[in-house]
Amino acid sequence: MLFAERLKAHQNAVEGRLTKLLGEAGSGPAAPGRLAEAMRYATLSGGKRFRPFLVIEAAALFGVPQRQALNTAAAVECIHCYSLVHDDLPAMDDDDLRRGRPTVHKAFDEATAILAGDALLTIAFEILSQPATHPNPEIRAELVFGLARASGWRGMAGGQMLDLAAERVLQDMDGIRKIQAMKTGALIEFSVDAGAILGRASAAEREALRTYARTIGLAFQVADDLLDAEGSPEHVGKATGKDARAGKATLVSLIGLSQARENLRALGNEAIDALKPFGSRAAILKEAAHFVTHRRS
Amino acid sequence: MLFAERLKAHQNAVEGRLTKLLGEAGSGPAAPGRLAEAMRYATLSGGKRFRPFLVIEAAALFGVPQRQALNTAAAVECIHCYSLVHDDLPAMDDDDLRRGRPTVHKAFDEATAILAGDALLTIAFEILSQPATHPNPEIRAELVFGLARASGWRGMAGGQMLDLAAERVLQDMDGIRKIQAMKTGALIEFSVDAGAILGRASAAEREALRTYARTIGLAFQVADDLLDAEGSPEHVGKATGKDARAGKATLVSLIGLSQARENLRALGNEAIDALKPFGSRAAILKEAAHFVTHRRS
Repeated sequence: MLFAERLKAHQNAVEGRLTKLLGEAGSGPAAPGRLAEAMRYATLSGGKRFRPFLVIEAAALFGVPQRQALNTAAAVECIHCYSLVHDDLPAMDDDDLRRGRPTVHKAFDEATAILAGDALLTIAFEILSQPATHPNPEIRAELVFGLARASGWRGMAGGQMLDLAAERVLQDMDGIRKIQAMKTGALIEFSVDAGAILGRASAAEREALRTYARTIGLAFQVADDLLDAEGSPEHVGKATGKDARAGKATLVSLIGLSQARENLRALGNEAIDALKPFGSRAAILKEAAHFVTHRRS
Repeated sequence: MLFAERLKAHQNAVEGRLTKLLGEAGSGPAAPGRLAEAMRYATLSGGKRFRPFLVIEAAALFGVPQRQALNTAAAVECIHCYSLVHDDLPAMDDDDLRRGRPTVHKAFDEATAILAGDALLTIAFEILSQPATHPNPEIRAELVFGLARASGWRGMAGGQMLDLAAERVLQDMDGIRKIQAMKTGALIEFSVDAGAILGRASAAEREALRTYARTIGLAFQVADDLLDAEGSPEHVGKATGKDARAGKATLVSLIGLSQARENLRALGNEAIDALKPFGSRAAILKEAAHFVTHRRS
Protein backbone atom coordinates (compact mmCIF):
# COMPACT_ATOMS: atom_id res chain seq x y z
CA MET A 1 0.00 0.00 0.00
CA LEU A 2 1.45 3.28 -1.21
CA PHE A 3 0.13 5.31 1.71
CA ALA A 4 1.65 3.15 4.46
CA GLU A 5 5.06 3.29 2.78
CA ARG A 6 4.96 7.04 2.35
CA LEU A 7 3.77 7.56 5.91
CA LYS A 8 6.66 5.42 7.15
CA ALA A 9 9.20 7.24 4.97
CA HIS A 10 8.01 10.63 6.18
CA GLN A 11 7.96 9.42 9.79
CA ASN A 12 11.62 8.45 9.52
CA ALA A 13 12.60 11.69 7.85
CA VAL A 14 10.72 13.83 10.38
CA GLU A 15 12.12 11.85 13.28
CA GLY A 16 15.60 12.42 11.87
CA ARG A 17 15.03 16.14 11.49
CA LEU A 18 13.53 16.45 14.98
CA THR A 19 16.50 14.57 16.41
CA LYS A 20 18.82 17.01 14.70
CA LEU A 21 16.88 20.11 15.74
CA LEU A 22 16.41 18.98 19.35
CA GLY A 23 19.86 17.44 19.50
CA GLU A 24 21.28 20.87 18.80
CA ALA A 25 19.08 22.06 21.62
CA GLY A 26 20.73 19.63 24.02
CA SER A 27 24.34 20.21 23.10
CA GLY A 28 26.75 22.94 24.07
CA PRO A 29 28.01 23.99 27.50
CA ALA A 30 24.99 26.19 28.23
CA ALA A 31 22.49 23.40 27.76
CA PRO A 32 20.03 22.82 30.58
CA GLY A 33 20.27 19.09 30.03
CA ARG A 34 17.15 17.93 31.85
CA LEU A 35 14.95 20.29 29.88
CA ALA A 36 16.39 19.16 26.55
CA GLU A 37 15.98 15.56 27.65
CA ALA A 38 12.29 16.12 28.45
CA MET A 39 11.79 17.88 25.10
CA ARG A 40 13.25 14.89 23.30
CA TYR A 41 11.27 12.42 25.40
CA ALA A 42 8.09 14.26 24.43
CA THR A 43 8.80 14.37 20.70
CA LEU A 44 10.92 11.34 19.83
CA SER A 45 8.58 8.72 21.22
CA GLY A 46 7.02 7.49 18.02
CA GLY A 47 3.58 8.71 17.11
CA LYS A 48 1.97 8.66 13.70
CA ARG A 49 3.47 11.99 12.62
CA PHE A 50 0.24 12.57 10.75
CA ARG A 51 0.50 16.37 10.75
CA PRO A 52 4.05 16.34 9.32
CA PHE A 53 2.79 13.87 6.72
CA LEU A 54 0.12 16.38 5.68
CA VAL A 55 2.66 19.22 5.45
CA ILE A 56 4.97 17.15 3.26
CA GLU A 57 2.28 15.69 1.00
CA ALA A 58 0.41 18.97 0.53
CA ALA A 59 3.73 20.60 -0.42
CA ALA A 60 4.48 17.68 -2.76
CA LEU A 61 1.27 18.48 -4.68
CA PHE A 62 3.11 21.59 -5.88
CA GLY A 63 6.40 19.88 -6.57
CA VAL A 64 8.14 20.75 -3.31
CA PRO A 65 10.54 17.92 -2.42
CA GLN A 66 10.31 16.31 1.01
CA ARG A 67 13.59 17.76 2.29
CA GLN A 68 12.34 21.32 1.66
CA ALA A 69 9.24 20.69 3.76
CA LEU A 70 10.93 18.90 6.66
CA ASN A 71 11.63 21.88 8.91
CA THR A 72 8.04 23.06 8.60
CA ALA A 73 6.80 19.54 9.27
CA ALA A 74 9.04 19.30 12.35
CA ALA A 75 7.81 22.67 13.66
CA VAL A 76 4.18 21.54 13.41
CA GLU A 77 5.05 18.32 15.25
CA CYS A 78 6.76 20.32 18.04
CA ILE A 79 3.49 22.22 18.54
CA HIS A 80 1.49 18.99 18.53
CA CYS A 81 3.83 17.40 21.08
CA TYR A 82 3.85 20.47 23.33
CA SER A 83 0.04 20.37 23.39
CA LEU A 84 0.07 16.72 24.43
CA VAL A 85 2.55 17.42 27.26
CA HIS A 86 0.45 20.28 28.65
CA ASP A 87 -2.91 18.55 28.11
CA ASP A 88 -1.66 15.54 30.07
CA LEU A 89 -0.79 17.66 33.16
CA PRO A 90 -2.64 16.96 36.42
CA ALA A 91 -4.39 20.34 36.26
CA MET A 92 -5.65 19.53 32.75
CA ASP A 93 -6.62 16.02 31.60
CA ASP A 94 -4.44 14.33 34.23
CA ASP A 95 -3.15 11.44 32.12
CA ASP A 96 -0.41 9.04 33.21
CA LEU A 97 -0.03 7.23 29.89
CA ARG A 98 0.76 8.52 26.40
CA ARG A 99 1.79 6.39 23.43
CA GLY A 100 2.09 3.52 25.91
CA ARG A 101 4.71 5.30 28.07
CA PRO A 102 4.56 7.48 31.18
CA THR A 103 3.56 11.05 30.34
CA VAL A 104 6.27 13.72 30.67
CA HIS A 105 5.22 14.91 34.14
CA LYS A 106 5.27 11.27 35.30
CA ALA A 107 8.65 10.46 33.74
CA PHE A 108 10.16 13.79 34.90
CA ASP A 109 8.08 16.13 37.08
CA GLU A 110 5.39 18.76 36.65
CA ALA A 111 7.67 21.79 36.48
CA THR A 112 9.82 20.11 33.84
CA ALA A 113 6.73 19.14 31.86
CA ILE A 114 5.41 22.71 31.88
CA LEU A 115 8.80 24.08 30.78
CA ALA A 116 9.36 21.37 28.17
CA GLY A 117 5.98 22.23 26.66
CA ASP A 118 6.82 25.92 26.70
CA ALA A 119 10.21 25.28 25.09
CA LEU A 120 8.73 23.02 22.38
CA LEU A 121 6.10 25.66 21.60
CA THR A 122 8.84 28.26 21.35
CA ILE A 123 11.27 26.21 19.26
CA ALA A 124 8.56 25.67 16.64
CA PHE A 125 8.73 29.38 15.84
CA GLU A 126 12.52 29.40 16.01
CA ILE A 127 12.53 26.64 13.39
CA LEU A 128 9.99 28.31 11.09
CA SER A 129 11.75 31.67 11.12
CA GLN A 130 15.16 30.21 10.14
CA PRO A 131 16.41 30.82 6.58
CA ALA A 132 17.04 27.05 6.39
CA THR A 133 13.27 26.51 6.47
CA HIS A 134 12.67 28.59 3.33
CA PRO A 135 14.90 31.12 1.60
CA ASN A 136 12.01 33.57 1.17
CA PRO A 137 11.33 35.53 4.41
CA GLU A 138 7.79 36.33 3.26
CA ILE A 139 7.02 32.62 3.29
CA ARG A 140 8.67 32.16 6.68
CA ALA A 141 6.65 35.02 8.17
CA GLU A 142 3.46 33.59 6.68
CA LEU A 143 4.21 30.17 8.16
CA VAL A 144 4.84 31.70 11.58
CA PHE A 145 1.61 33.66 11.41
CA GLY A 146 -0.44 30.66 10.33
CA LEU A 147 1.00 28.35 12.96
CA ALA A 148 0.53 30.93 15.73
CA ARG A 149 -3.09 31.48 14.68
CA ALA A 150 -3.81 27.77 14.58
CA SER A 151 -2.21 27.05 17.96
CA GLY A 152 -3.26 30.04 20.03
CA TRP A 153 -6.40 31.26 21.78
CA ARG A 154 -8.41 31.16 18.55
CA GLY A 155 -7.25 27.64 17.78
CA MET A 156 -5.78 24.80 19.75
CA ALA A 157 -5.29 26.48 23.15
CA GLY A 158 -8.78 27.99 23.00
CA GLY A 159 -10.20 24.61 22.04
CA GLN A 160 -8.54 22.92 25.01
CA MET A 161 -10.02 25.62 27.26
CA LEU A 162 -13.50 24.99 25.87
CA ASP A 163 -12.97 21.25 26.13
CA LEU A 164 -12.12 21.51 29.84
CA ALA A 165 -15.24 23.62 30.37
CA ALA A 166 -17.29 21.06 28.40
CA GLU A 167 -16.91 18.62 31.25
CA ARG A 168 -19.11 20.93 33.28
CA VAL A 169 -21.47 22.30 30.63
CA LEU A 170 -23.70 20.07 28.51
CA GLN A 171 -22.76 20.54 24.88
CA ASP A 172 -24.93 20.15 21.79
CA MET A 173 -23.63 19.11 18.37
CA ASP A 174 -22.68 22.66 17.41
CA GLY A 175 -20.74 23.12 20.63
CA ILE A 176 -18.87 19.86 20.17
CA ARG A 177 -18.02 20.63 16.55
CA LYS A 178 -16.74 24.05 17.51
CA ILE A 179 -14.50 22.63 20.25
CA GLN A 180 -13.15 19.97 17.90
CA ALA A 181 -12.56 22.44 15.10
CA MET A 182 -10.43 24.55 17.43
CA LYS A 183 -8.73 21.87 19.52
CA THR A 184 -7.78 19.40 16.79
CA GLY A 185 -8.99 20.87 13.50
CA ALA A 186 -7.03 24.10 13.47
CA LEU A 187 -3.58 22.46 13.55
CA ILE A 188 -4.55 19.81 10.99
CA GLU A 189 -5.87 22.56 8.75
CA PHE A 190 -2.65 24.54 9.15
CA SER A 191 -0.56 21.45 8.35
CA VAL A 192 -2.17 21.20 4.92
CA ASP A 193 -2.11 24.97 4.48
CA ALA A 194 1.60 25.05 5.33
CA GLY A 195 2.21 22.73 2.39
CA ALA A 196 0.20 25.08 0.20
CA ILE A 197 2.22 28.06 1.46
CA LEU A 198 5.53 26.29 0.77
CA GLY A 199 4.24 25.34 -2.68
CA ARG A 200 2.92 28.83 -3.45
CA ALA A 201 -0.52 27.42 -4.23
CA SER A 202 -3.10 29.62 -5.94
CA ALA A 203 -6.00 30.99 -3.88
CA ALA A 204 -8.37 28.44 -5.43
CA GLU A 205 -6.02 25.53 -4.75
CA ARG A 206 -5.55 26.73 -1.19
CA GLU A 207 -9.28 26.93 -0.67
CA ALA A 208 -9.83 23.39 -2.00
CA LEU A 209 -7.12 22.09 0.31
CA ARG A 210 -8.67 23.98 3.20
CA THR A 211 -11.96 22.16 2.66
CA TYR A 212 -10.10 18.85 2.53
CA ALA A 213 -8.20 19.67 5.73
CA ARG A 214 -11.28 20.89 7.59
CA THR A 215 -13.10 17.69 6.71
CA ILE A 216 -10.35 15.29 7.70
CA GLY A 217 -9.88 17.33 10.88
CA LEU A 218 -13.49 16.63 11.79
CA ALA A 219 -13.12 12.98 10.79
CA PHE A 220 -9.97 12.68 12.89
CA GLN A 221 -11.86 13.77 15.99
CA VAL A 222 -14.88 11.53 15.32
CA ALA A 223 -12.48 8.60 14.97
CA ASP A 224 -10.85 9.67 18.25
CA ASP A 225 -14.22 9.70 20.02
CA LEU A 226 -15.00 6.25 18.60
CA LEU A 227 -11.64 4.93 19.80
CA ASP A 228 -12.25 6.41 23.24
CA ALA A 229 -15.66 4.72 23.38
CA GLU A 230 -14.64 1.37 21.90
CA GLY A 231 -10.87 0.89 22.18
CA SER A 232 -8.72 -0.65 24.91
CA PRO A 233 -5.88 1.36 26.50
CA GLU A 234 -3.34 -1.27 25.40
CA HIS A 235 -4.34 -0.87 21.81
CA VAL A 236 -4.85 2.89 21.73
CA GLY A 237 -1.74 3.60 23.85
CA LYS A 238 -3.50 5.97 26.22
CA ALA A 239 -6.41 5.85 28.68
CA THR A 240 -9.79 5.17 27.04
CA GLY A 241 -13.39 5.54 28.23
CA LYS A 242 -12.34 8.86 29.76
CA ASP A 243 -15.07 10.94 28.13
CA ALA A 244 -17.83 8.70 29.45
CA ARG A 245 -16.33 8.69 32.95
CA ALA A 246 -16.00 12.47 32.87
CA GLY A 247 -19.66 12.67 31.82
CA LYS A 248 -18.47 14.64 28.81
CA ALA A 249 -20.75 14.97 25.81
CA THR A 250 -19.09 13.70 22.65
CA LEU A 251 -20.42 13.10 19.19
CA VAL A 252 -20.69 9.42 20.11
CA SER A 253 -22.68 10.11 23.29
CA LEU A 254 -25.05 12.41 21.40
CA ILE A 255 -25.76 10.40 18.25
CA GLY A 256 -24.58 6.89 19.16
CA LEU A 257 -21.90 4.61 17.75
CA SER A 258 -23.56 3.59 14.52
CA GLN A 259 -24.48 7.13 13.51
CA ALA A 260 -21.00 8.33 14.42
CA ARG A 261 -19.52 5.65 12.16
CA GLU A 262 -21.84 6.76 9.37
CA ASN A 263 -20.79 10.35 9.95
CA LEU A 264 -17.15 9.35 9.69
CA ARG A 265 -17.72 7.62 6.35
CA ALA A 266 -19.51 10.69 4.98
CA LEU A 267 -16.66 12.98 6.07
CA GLY A 268 -14.16 10.68 4.35
CA ASN A 269 -16.05 10.97 1.08
CA GLU A 270 -16.35 14.72 1.43
CA ALA A 271 -12.60 15.04 1.95
CA ILE A 272 -11.88 13.00 -1.17
CA ASP A 273 -14.34 15.11 -3.19
CA ALA A 274 -12.51 18.27 -2.16
CA LEU A 275 -9.37 16.96 -3.85
CA LYS A 276 -10.99 16.64 -7.29
CA PRO A 277 -9.24 19.71 -8.75
CA PHE A 278 -5.88 18.00 -8.24
CA GLY A 279 -6.79 14.77 -10.08
CA SER A 280 -4.41 11.87 -9.65
CA ARG A 281 -1.68 14.09 -8.14
CA ALA A 282 -3.69 13.91 -4.91
CA ALA A 283 -3.79 10.10 -4.72
CA ILE A 284 -1.81 9.99 -1.47
CA LEU A 285 -3.91 12.67 0.22
CA LYS A 286 -7.01 10.66 -0.76
CA GLU A 287 -5.48 7.61 0.87
CA ALA A 288 -4.77 9.75 3.93
CA ALA A 289 -8.49 10.52 4.19
CA HIS A 290 -9.15 6.78 4.05
CA PHE A 291 -6.54 6.25 6.77
CA VAL A 292 -8.18 8.81 9.05
CA THR A 293 -11.62 7.29 8.71
CA HIS A 294 -10.33 3.76 9.32
CA ARG A 295 -7.70 4.32 11.99
CA ARG A 296 -7.65 1.93 14.93
CA SER A 297 -5.18 3.72 17.23
CA MET B 1 12.71 63.88 35.00
CA LEU B 2 12.83 62.98 31.36
CA PHE B 3 13.10 59.22 31.94
CA ALA B 4 10.06 58.95 34.21
CA GLU B 5 7.92 60.85 31.69
CA ARG B 6 9.05 58.73 28.79
CA LEU B 7 8.56 55.51 30.74
CA LYS B 8 5.02 56.61 31.61
CA ALA B 9 4.25 57.61 28.01
CA HIS B 10 5.49 54.27 26.67
CA GLN B 11 3.61 52.39 29.41
CA ASN B 12 0.37 54.01 28.31
CA ALA B 13 1.03 53.37 24.64
CA VAL B 14 1.96 49.73 25.22
CA GLU B 15 -1.02 49.19 27.50
CA GLY B 16 -3.23 50.64 24.76
CA ARG B 17 -1.73 48.38 22.12
CA LEU B 18 -1.97 45.29 24.32
CA THR B 19 -5.60 46.11 25.07
CA LYS B 20 -6.27 46.31 21.35
CA LEU B 21 -4.37 43.12 20.50
CA LEU B 22 -5.87 41.11 23.36
CA GLY B 23 -9.25 42.77 22.97
CA GLU B 24 -9.39 41.39 19.47
CA ALA B 25 -8.53 38.06 21.06
CA GLY B 26 -11.56 38.27 23.32
CA SER B 27 -14.16 39.37 20.81
CA GLY B 28 -16.13 37.46 18.21
CA PRO B 29 -18.51 34.55 18.61
CA ALA B 30 -15.72 31.94 18.68
CA ALA B 31 -13.94 33.50 21.61
CA PRO B 32 -13.26 31.24 24.58
CA GLY B 33 -14.07 34.10 26.94
CA ARG B 34 -12.46 32.80 30.12
CA LEU B 35 -9.13 32.25 28.38
CA ALA B 36 -9.10 35.74 26.88
CA GLU B 37 -10.06 37.16 30.27
CA ALA B 38 -7.12 35.38 31.94
CA MET B 39 -4.76 36.59 29.19
CA ARG B 40 -5.87 40.17 29.79
CA TYR B 41 -5.68 39.77 33.57
CA ALA B 42 -2.08 38.58 33.20
CA THR B 43 -0.98 41.41 30.90
CA LEU B 44 -3.09 44.47 31.71
CA SER B 45 -2.31 44.63 35.41
CA GLY B 46 0.23 47.42 35.41
CA GLY B 47 3.88 46.51 35.61
CA LYS B 48 6.81 48.68 34.68
CA ARG B 49 6.78 47.68 31.00
CA PHE B 50 10.53 47.95 31.13
CA ARG B 51 11.16 45.57 28.23
CA PRO B 52 8.74 47.43 25.91
CA PHE B 53 10.47 50.65 26.97
CA LEU B 54 13.80 49.20 25.85
CA VAL B 55 12.37 48.11 22.48
CA ILE B 56 10.91 51.54 21.84
CA GLU B 57 13.93 53.54 23.00
CA ALA B 58 16.48 51.36 21.21
CA ALA B 59 14.44 51.74 18.02
CA ALA B 60 14.21 55.51 18.63
CA LEU B 61 18.03 55.68 18.55
CA PHE B 62 17.71 54.97 14.83
CA GLY B 63 14.77 57.30 14.23
CA VAL B 64 11.99 54.72 14.43
CA PRO B 65 8.87 56.43 15.84
CA GLN B 66 7.15 54.89 18.87
CA ARG B 67 4.08 53.75 16.93
CA GLN B 68 6.25 51.66 14.59
CA ALA B 69 7.81 49.83 17.53
CA LEU B 70 4.63 49.24 19.54
CA ASN B 71 3.67 45.82 18.16
CA THR B 72 7.17 44.50 18.79
CA ALA B 73 7.13 46.01 22.28
CA ALA B 74 3.74 44.40 22.97
CA ALA B 75 4.96 41.00 21.73
CA VAL B 76 7.94 41.10 24.10
CA GLU B 77 5.63 42.03 26.98
CA CYS B 78 3.34 39.07 26.14
CA ILE B 79 6.34 36.76 26.50
CA HIS B 80 7.36 38.39 29.77
CA CYS B 81 3.82 38.08 31.16
CA TYR B 82 3.46 34.44 30.04
CA SER B 83 6.68 33.63 31.88
CA LEU B 84 5.36 35.23 35.07
CA VAL B 85 2.11 33.24 34.84
CA HIS B 86 3.91 29.92 34.40
CA ASP B 87 6.66 30.70 36.94
CA ASP B 88 4.01 31.46 39.58
CA LEU B 89 2.33 28.04 39.16
CA PRO B 90 2.27 25.69 42.17
CA ALA B 91 4.61 23.23 40.41
CA MET B 92 7.12 26.04 39.81
CA ASP B 93 7.69 28.95 42.25
CA ASP B 94 4.23 28.58 43.83
CA ASP B 95 3.43 32.27 44.29
CA ASP B 96 0.04 33.64 45.33
CA LEU B 97 0.81 37.31 44.82
CA ARG B 98 2.03 39.21 41.76
CA ARG B 99 2.00 42.99 41.36
CA GLY B 100 -0.04 43.10 44.56
CA ARG B 101 -2.88 40.96 43.14
CA PRO B 102 -3.66 37.22 43.19
CA THR B 103 -1.62 35.33 40.60
CA VAL B 104 -3.50 33.97 37.57
CA HIS B 105 -3.90 30.43 38.92
CA LYS B 106 -5.31 31.92 42.15
CA ALA B 107 -7.67 34.35 40.41
CA PHE B 108 -8.76 31.67 37.86
CA ASP B 109 -7.44 28.11 38.21
CA GLU B 110 -4.34 26.15 37.29
CA ALA B 111 -5.55 24.83 33.94
CA THR B 112 -6.58 28.32 32.86
CA ALA B 113 -3.21 29.71 33.99
CA ILE B 114 -1.30 27.10 31.98
CA LEU B 115 -3.40 27.77 28.87
CA ALA B 116 -3.30 31.56 29.28
CA GLY B 117 0.49 31.36 29.45
CA ASP B 118 0.57 29.14 26.37
CA ALA B 119 -1.75 31.49 24.49
CA LEU B 120 0.27 34.60 25.45
CA LEU B 121 3.47 32.89 24.32
CA THR B 122 1.81 32.00 21.04
CA ILE B 123 0.21 35.40 20.37
CA ALA B 124 3.63 37.05 20.70
CA PHE B 125 4.68 35.30 17.48
CA GLU B 126 1.34 36.01 15.82
CA ILE B 127 1.91 39.70 16.52
CA LEU B 128 5.53 39.74 15.31
CA SER B 129 4.75 37.94 12.05
CA GLN B 130 1.95 40.35 11.06
CA PRO B 131 2.64 42.83 8.26
CA ALA B 132 1.33 45.54 10.63
CA THR B 133 4.43 45.01 12.79
CA HIS B 134 6.83 45.83 9.98
CA PRO B 135 6.29 45.97 6.20
CA ASN B 136 9.52 44.06 5.52
CA PRO B 137 9.06 40.29 6.03
CA GLU B 138 12.80 39.82 6.50
CA ILE B 139 12.64 42.02 9.59
CA ARG B 140 9.55 40.21 10.86
CA ALA B 141 11.25 36.82 10.45
CA GLU B 142 14.36 38.13 12.21
CA LEU B 143 12.27 39.41 15.12
CA VAL B 144 10.51 36.04 15.43
CA PHE B 145 13.81 34.20 15.38
CA GLY B 146 15.39 36.47 17.98
CA LEU B 147 12.41 36.34 20.34
CA ALA B 148 12.14 32.55 20.06
CA ARG B 149 15.86 32.15 20.78
CA ALA B 150 15.68 34.47 23.79
CA SER B 151 12.60 32.80 25.28
CA GLY B 152 13.23 29.15 24.61
CA TRP B 153 15.38 26.37 26.02
CA ARG B 154 18.60 28.36 25.42
CA GLY B 155 17.16 31.43 27.08
CA MET B 156 14.34 32.15 29.46
CA ALA B 157 12.74 28.69 29.73
CA GLY B 158 16.16 27.05 30.15
CA GLY B 159 17.07 29.62 32.80
CA GLN B 160 13.91 28.90 34.77
CA MET B 161 14.74 25.19 34.58
CA LEU B 162 18.23 25.83 35.96
CA ASP B 163 16.82 28.17 38.58
CA LEU B 164 14.45 25.47 39.86
CA ALA B 165 17.37 23.03 40.02
CA ALA B 166 19.45 25.68 41.83
CA GLU B 167 17.26 25.22 44.90
CA ARG B 168 18.76 21.77 45.22
CA VAL B 169 22.31 22.32 43.96
CA LEU B 170 24.68 24.81 45.56
CA GLN B 171 25.66 27.39 42.96
CA ASP B 172 28.83 29.43 42.70
CA MET B 173 29.05 32.88 41.14
CA ASP B 174 29.46 31.52 37.63
CA GLY B 175 26.45 29.29 38.04
CA ILE B 176 24.31 32.14 39.31
CA ARG B 177 25.40 34.49 36.54
CA LYS B 178 24.62 31.87 33.92
CA ILE B 179 21.13 31.26 35.31
CA GLN B 180 20.46 34.98 35.48
CA ALA B 181 21.78 35.59 31.97
CA MET B 182 19.36 32.99 30.63
CA LYS B 183 16.34 33.56 32.85
CA THR B 184 16.20 37.37 32.85
CA GLY B 185 19.07 38.56 30.68
CA ALA B 186 18.13 36.94 27.39
CA LEU B 187 14.76 38.69 27.05
CA ILE B 188 16.16 42.06 28.16
CA GLU B 189 18.93 41.64 25.61
CA PHE B 190 16.44 40.79 22.89
CA SER B 191 14.30 43.82 23.78
CA VAL B 192 17.21 46.14 22.98
CA ASP B 193 18.21 44.05 19.96
CA ALA B 194 14.65 44.20 18.64
CA GLY B 195 14.93 47.98 18.57
CA ALA B 196 18.20 47.63 16.68
CA ILE B 197 16.56 45.23 14.20
CA LEU B 198 13.63 47.60 13.65
CA GLY B 199 16.10 50.46 13.19
CA ARG B 200 18.39 48.50 10.85
CA ALA B 201 21.37 49.21 13.07
CA SER B 202 24.89 48.47 11.78
CA ALA B 203 26.75 45.44 13.14
CA ALA B 204 28.91 47.71 15.33
CA GLU B 205 25.92 49.58 16.72
CA ARG B 206 24.16 46.32 17.42
CA GLU B 207 27.18 44.99 19.26
CA ALA B 208 27.45 48.12 21.43
CA LEU B 209 23.79 47.86 22.29
CA ARG B 210 24.21 44.18 23.08
CA THR B 211 26.88 45.02 25.65
CA TYR B 212 24.59 47.66 27.16
CA ALA B 213 21.69 45.21 27.28
CA ARG B 214 23.73 42.37 28.76
CA THR B 215 25.00 44.67 31.48
CA ILE B 216 21.63 46.10 32.48
CA GLY B 217 20.23 42.58 32.36
CA LEU B 218 22.75 41.54 34.99
CA ALA B 219 22.07 44.70 36.98
CA PHE B 220 18.35 44.06 36.81
CA GLN B 221 18.80 40.68 38.44
CA VAL B 222 21.20 41.92 41.14
CA ALA B 223 18.61 44.60 42.00
CA ASP B 224 15.96 41.86 42.11
CA ASP B 225 18.06 39.81 44.53
CA LEU B 226 18.59 42.89 46.71
CA LEU B 227 14.85 43.59 46.74
CA ASP B 228 14.15 39.98 47.65
CA ALA B 229 16.63 40.23 50.53
CA GLU B 230 15.67 43.71 51.76
CA GLY B 231 12.19 44.63 50.54
CA SER B 232 8.77 44.07 52.08
CA PRO B 233 6.04 42.23 50.11
CA GLU B 234 3.75 45.31 50.31
CA HIS B 235 6.34 47.47 48.66
CA VAL B 236 7.67 45.01 46.10
CA GLY B 237 4.20 43.68 45.22
CA LYS B 238 5.17 40.02 45.48
CA ALA B 239 6.51 37.64 48.13
CA THR B 240 10.03 38.52 49.37
CA GLY B 241 12.65 36.62 51.33
CA LYS B 242 11.82 33.60 49.19
CA ASP B 243 15.35 32.86 48.08
CA ALA B 244 16.65 32.71 51.66
CA ARG B 245 13.75 30.48 52.75
CA ALA B 246 14.35 28.18 49.79
CA GLY B 247 18.02 28.04 50.78
CA LYS B 248 18.82 29.24 47.28
CA ALA B 249 22.22 30.72 46.58
CA THR B 250 21.96 34.23 45.16
CA LEU B 251 24.54 36.85 44.49
CA VAL B 252 23.51 38.48 47.78
CA SER B 253 23.92 35.28 49.79
CA LEU B 254 27.35 34.68 48.25
CA ILE B 255 28.94 38.13 48.47
CA GLY B 256 26.72 39.97 50.96
CA LEU B 257 24.51 43.05 50.66
CA SER B 258 27.17 45.72 50.54
CA GLN B 259 29.25 43.97 47.88
CA ALA B 260 26.12 43.31 45.86
CA ARG B 261 25.26 47.01 45.99
CA GLU B 262 28.77 47.84 44.84
CA ASN B 263 28.44 45.32 42.03
CA LEU B 264 25.20 46.96 40.96
CA ARG B 265 26.83 50.40 40.78
CA ALA B 266 29.69 49.04 38.67
CA LEU B 267 27.27 47.39 36.25
CA GLY B 268 25.37 50.66 35.91
CA ASN B 269 28.57 52.49 34.92
CA GLU B 270 29.51 49.74 32.50
CA ALA B 271 26.13 49.99 30.80
CA ILE B 272 26.48 53.73 30.40
CA ASP B 273 30.00 53.31 28.96
CA ALA B 274 28.67 50.93 26.32
CA LEU B 275 26.44 53.69 24.99
CA LYS B 276 29.34 56.08 24.23
CA PRO B 277 29.21 55.57 20.43
CA PHE B 278 25.70 57.04 20.40
CA GLY B 279 26.57 60.24 22.23
CA SER B 280 23.69 62.33 23.49
CA ARG B 281 21.14 60.40 21.39
CA ALA B 282 21.36 57.69 24.06
CA ALA B 283 20.52 59.99 27.00
CA ILE B 284 17.31 58.14 27.80
CA LEU B 285 18.93 54.70 27.67
CA LYS B 286 21.58 56.00 30.06
CA GLU B 287 18.84 57.13 32.42
CA ALA B 288 17.32 53.67 32.06
CA ALA B 289 20.56 52.15 33.35
CA HIS B 290 20.35 54.50 36.32
CA PHE B 291 16.74 53.46 36.88
CA VAL B 292 17.68 49.76 36.89
CA THR B 293 20.46 50.23 39.42
CA HIS B 294 18.27 52.34 41.72
CA ARG B 295 14.92 50.61 41.46
CA ARG B 296 12.98 49.99 44.65
CA SER B 297 10.21 47.69 43.38
